[in-house]
Amino acid sequence: MSAVDCGACQGGWPARAQHVADLGLSVAYLHEDEFFSGWTILVLKRHATEPYELAGDERARLIDEVTAVARALSTVFNAVKMNYALLGNQVPHIHWHVVPRLAGDPAPREPVWTVPHAPATLDDAERRAVIARIRAAL
Amino acid sequence: MSAVDCGACQGGWPARAQHVADLGLSVAYLHEDEFFSGWTILVLKRHATEPYELAGDERARLIDEVTAVARALSTVFNAVKMNYALLGNQVPHIHWHVVPRLAGDPAPREPVWTVPHAPATLDDAERRAVIARIRAAL
Repeated sequence: MSAVDCGACQGGWPARAQHVADLGLSVAYLHEDEFFSGWTILVLKRHATEPYELAGDERARLIDEVTAVARALSTVFNAVKMNYALLGNQVPHIHWHVVPRLAGDPAPREPVWTVPHAPATLDDAERRAVIARIRAAL
Repeated sequence: MSAVDCGACQGGWPARAQHVADLGLSVAYLHEDEFFSGWTILVLKRHATEPYELAGDERARLIDEVTAVARALSTVFNAVKMNYALLGNQVPHIHWHVVPRLAGDPAPREPVWTVPHAPATLDDAERRAVIARIRAAL
């Protein structure tokens, strides 16, 4: 897959309403499903699908951006542990999942993807409030 | 959790027989369950639980080690996509899962953790052969 046929490059995903912050090499968006509160996605601005396609300094800057978001989410949501994943099985364009795991998590020992649940979509006011809290911590 | 009560620091996990390579800041081990062929774990040598606890240069070196292993696994297993995850829900000590996703994957669009399966444990000869192939590609 190249930039030409990549949904992330075409601007269709993630939705603009989920935008949290431009971090430099990547842009952070609140995940549409907030069943796990604070789940955030960092999307690399340029098209690449594996970290080994990046230059070393680019890779270092990107992991620093992921880390800065993780630190902010940990603070805002008082996380017990942070989870980080770059999968790309559905959207190969490099994007990081950064997920705070909180006290009261329904399956604290398991990856979030194993937890069946109805998607929790925030209403506009809730979403804006959560995004504002994350921005303030960045 | 500190180094004193951390299973990874006490040397009980992963098993020595799974050892692939010392990469500098981390050590690579073949995952005991090879249902997803090539699944490898990189364990940070020193005790830390979140990437934001590391110095910037340490974080950059660690992601370079993860990336080098990913590139090797991609080559050895002819991966369609590589998956990367730092979770720590069960063992908080920093360790990265690096998993090649292959043609013929039973659930190519899903995270590996969602795929029910009996663990695939290699016998000694198989395990040594796989580890040798990974080492040769590193």
